[in-house]
Amino acid sequence: MRDVCVIGLGLIGGSVLRAAARAGRTVWGATASTSDAEAAVADGFDASTDVAGALRKAAATDALVVLAVPLTALRSVLTAVAEHAPDCLLTDVTSVKVPVRDSVRATAPSVTFVGGHPMAGSAESGWAASTSGLFDGAAWVLTVESDTDLAAWREVATLALDCGAHVVPLDAEVHDETAARISHLPHLLAAVLASIGAAGGPVAAALAAGSFTDGTRVAGTRPELVRAMTEGNRAALLPVLDEALGALGAARGSLASTGGLAATIDAGHTAARRVAEHRRANRTSRSVRLSASDARQALLAVGDRGGRITAFDGDVALAEVP
Amino acid sequence: MRDVCVIGLGLIGGSVLRAAARAGRTVWGATASTSDAEAAVADGFDASTDVAGALRKAAATDALVVLAVPLTALRSVLTAVAEHAPDCLLTDVTSVKVPVRDSVRATAPSVTFVGGHPMAGSAESGWAASTSGLFDGAAWVLTVESDTDLAAWREVATLALDCGAHVVPLDAEVHDETAARISHLPHLLAAVLASIGAAGGPVAAALAAGSFTDGTRVAGTRPELVRAMTEGNRAALLPVLDEALGALGAARGSLASTGGLAATIDAGHTAARRVAEHRRANRTSRSVRLSASDARQALLAVGDRGGRITAFDGDVALAEVP
Repeated sequence: MRDVCVIGLGLIGGSVLRAAARAGRTVWGATASTSDAEAAVADGFDASTDVAGALRKAAATDALVVLAVPLTALRSVLTAVAEHAPDCLLTDVTSVKVPVRDSVRATAPSVTFVGGHPMAGSAESGWAASTSGLFDGAAWVLTVESDTDLAAWREVATLALDCGAHVVPLDAEVHDETAARISHLPHLLAAVLASIGAAGGPVAAALAAGSFTDGTRVAGTRPELVRAMTEGNRAALLPVLDEALGALGAARGSLASTGGLAATIDAGHTAARRVAEHRRANRTSRSVRLSASDARQALLAVGDRGGRITAFDGDVALAEVP
Repeated sequence: MRDVCVIGLGLIGGSVLRAAARAGRTVWGATASTSDAEAAVADGFDASTDVAGALRKAAATDALVVLAVPLTALRSVLTAVAEHAPDCLLTDVTSVKVPVRDSVRATAPSVTFVGGHPMAGSAESGWAASTSGLFDGAAWVLTVESDTDLAAWREVATLALDCGAHVVPLDAEVHDETAARISHLPHLLAAVLASIGAAGGPVAAALAAGSFTDGTRVAGTRPELVRAMTEGNRAALLPVLDEALGALGAARGSLASTGGLAATIDAGHTAARRVAEHRRANRTSRSVRLSASDARQALLAVGDRGGRITAFDGDVALAEVP
């Protein structure tokens, strides 16, 4: 098992450090945040604010480097990677994948990179919110591109599995469009709904119950994190925002003209049921030999069908596909 | 304590019947649904499908009649009220208040009416989902209008308190605008979000986590219930829908032109915090003597400030106001 060096020790990075340690890995971390570094040390971890030193140690021990910094800090950290660990095996846990891939290619071209995104989180942030179980049962996307080194991919996937997650192989564009649908748009709708509720003043606050509370829960997330993920996924988010405007405008038009909202509400109900059915669907086992010539396509076929990698047997990825 | 006759024995009506019985009231009910009536009888309640008979018994015993039928069935039930219990004390638990008030005035003009709306529910429906504790700790709006009989109002408020709720006095228009903000818009946004998520196919279903699950939870509600409440509140919902379209369109424009979403996200975060602060605010006691000449204004002042009635002492309503 490779050692793991985590740069960025907030909620996600801290949880990777804890989960990898729980799996028996040798781990260390560094962060620009003095308070997160001190809190990690107080919890018994090898952590500091010396990012360069942590990266040099990774280069010396051939460790897997995990970047868990906000998207806005990524380029400066990649510059440090290029300087101190230019040939390392690198992954990230950022919420967009095309911009990160492009940054890595531009800034640290000699690393071996596999883009990642664990679909887990909470409204809390910082090391204090991190837990070793954050990824248990979660989906962890790892990108598969035409130039992906599949031996490196298996190394990163093994870390995700060690952290308790299952692995979803996707290409970066599919990830970003999907994240816009199921994460970035929900955050924007929650913000809009919170503003419209608050405009109703104390009466609205007094009457707000389940539908408003559920619909605005993620509006409590730190705004800089929401900005980083939504603004960072601009290209994929714009057409999804247009879909939402179109659907909401159609509802408005129908309510104004005919008084009816059946199309919107029935479609939403059917859609919610369809998503739930996908999630409950029986899964069949299949396997992908990573040395096969069509391994990349076979991995992407697993992800594109809503499947997941749950283990490795040598160079064979064991998958469950709905 | 007045006896209570509930017409409509679904989630809300059934829960009113159970909660009033829990409070020691004599209760009976009727419903057009044979299965709900049979289930209520099987649970030991006096229930049937004989709406006319239940209303005649209410007229004979001067019981409080609670209409808990969907908005779409209201007019036909009001016709039965006008025929079988034309002078009764009547309330309802429907999600809009202006259209119900207007229907009562048009169809059963000689009843003494106090409009009501308990802010409680679940995605489940029917008698099987009803519980005696559904309203514990919930807000229960009762309308106060220029012609409201405050002795009757107290009778209805006492039932709401008996059911475990606190009472929020509001005029019908304020209720309907607020319900559009904190209930009807959330249901429409959940429907739109569910559709856009489902359009992402099995990949979206595989990756959907907290923000999508929270944001679409109420899309699982029975579509006919969502249609009834949103379409029934058309006049108040249209301007709120326009607010949402304006806010989402501004976000879209800003993302496309400057790449930034700070205005939308920061405003949503601030708004969510403001709503939470309203709900946590310290409350001071005040009282409203229902025989005072300005009692209606004093009750509305409680509701408009996000306050609530928690008890009665004779003809004095005891309130908590933030």
